[in-house]
Amino acid sequence: MRMSQGVEWSVHCLSVLAFLPEERALSAGRLAEFHGIPAPYLAKHLQALVRAGIIDSVPGPRGGFRLERAPADISLLDVVEALEGPEPAFRCTEIRQQGPSAIGKKCYTRPCGVAAAFANADNAWRTALRATTLQQLIEEMPRSVDPRQLKKRAAWLDDVLA
Amino acid sequence: MRMSQGVEWSVHCLSVLAFLPEERALSAGRLAEFHGIPAPYLAKHLQALVRAGIIDSVPGPRGGFRLERAPADISLLDVVEALEGPEPAFRCTEIRQQGPSAIGKKCYTRPCGVAAAFANADNAWRTALRATTLQQLIEEMPRSVDPRQLKKRAAWLDDVLA
Repeated sequence: MRMSQGVEWSVHCLSVLAFLPEERALSAGRLAEFHGIPAPYLAKHLQALVRAGIIDSVPGPRGGFRLERAPADISLLDVVEALEGPEPAFRCTEIRQQGPSAIGKKCYTRPCGVAAAFANADNAWRTALRATTLQQLIEEMPRSVDPRQLKKRAAWLDDVLA
Repeated sequence: MRMSQGVEWSVHCLSVLAFLPEERALSAGRLAEFHGIPAPYLAKHLQALVRAGIIDSVPGPRGGFRLERAPADISLLDVVEALEGPEPAFRCTEIRQQGPSAIGKKCYTRPCGVAAAFANADNAWRTALRATTLQQLIEEMPRSVDPRQLKKRAAWLDDVLA
C-alpha cells in the first residue's frame, strides 16, 4: 500500500512554483529538469493537480504551470487527494453481511466496529496532512534546506526566468 | 493507494478465532465459509498472519488456525503490517538530491521537510491503529453487532466445534 511517486514529485514542484514572480509560469520540462525526473510522467501528475484546482495551466510561449491558490490554501492532503483520490486506504466490503451468521440487510444499522476503527485511523492521517500547508513547508525551508542548496535553487530560477 | 482486502478478512477472522475454546482451531475452509469469502485467497492471508506470529497453524485432523497471542496483544497495526509490510505509504526518493540545485551527498544532514511532514502523518495513522486491539473490538461487539447476529455467530461456532 504505497502512494504514487507523483506525490513526492508534486509537492517538490509546488515548492518551486511558490517562488515564481506574478504572471510567470514554468513548463513541465523545466520542473522535470529541476528535479532530475522524467518529464512525461511528471506532466501526467501536473495535469491531476490542474484538475484539482491546485495549479493552473497557462498557454503560450511563456506558458506553463503556476499556483492557482495561495500556498497557505494548499495542504498536503489536497495533493494526496488530487493524485490518489479521496478513498480511504482500508476497504470495507461489509463481509459481516455474508455467510451463515448474516441477518437481514436492514438490520445493519450500527457501523461495523472494524470499519469504524480503520476510519478513525484514516481521519488521524488526513487531519495531519490537512494541517500541513505549502506555506508552512516554504517557511521551514531555511531550516530544512541547506543554505547552499537554497542559493542554487534561486540561481536556477533566475536563470530560467531571465 | 488501498490496502489488500485481506486486512478486512483477517481482522474479522481473528474476531472469530478469539472465541475458540482452548486447544481448538478452525481451518481456512471454515473461516472462509463463515465469512462467505474464497478459501484459497484467505489461506494466503492467514499464512501471512502465521509468519507474523499473530496466529498459529495446528496440524492434524482437528487442526487449523488459532490465536498465537492474547487478543489484548494483537493490534490493528500488527495485522496491517503482517499483510502490507511496515513501509510507510509515502515514498521519499530524495529527489531533493537530484537536478541542478543538488549539493554534495554529505550535505543532506537535515531531514527533508516534505518527508518529515508525511512521516508525521504516517505516525498519527500508526498510533491510532496500534491503539486498537482485538480485545477492544471484541468487547465492543455487544454494541457494534446486532444481538441476532451474535447469536447466529455463537450457534455456528458451537455447531462446527461439536
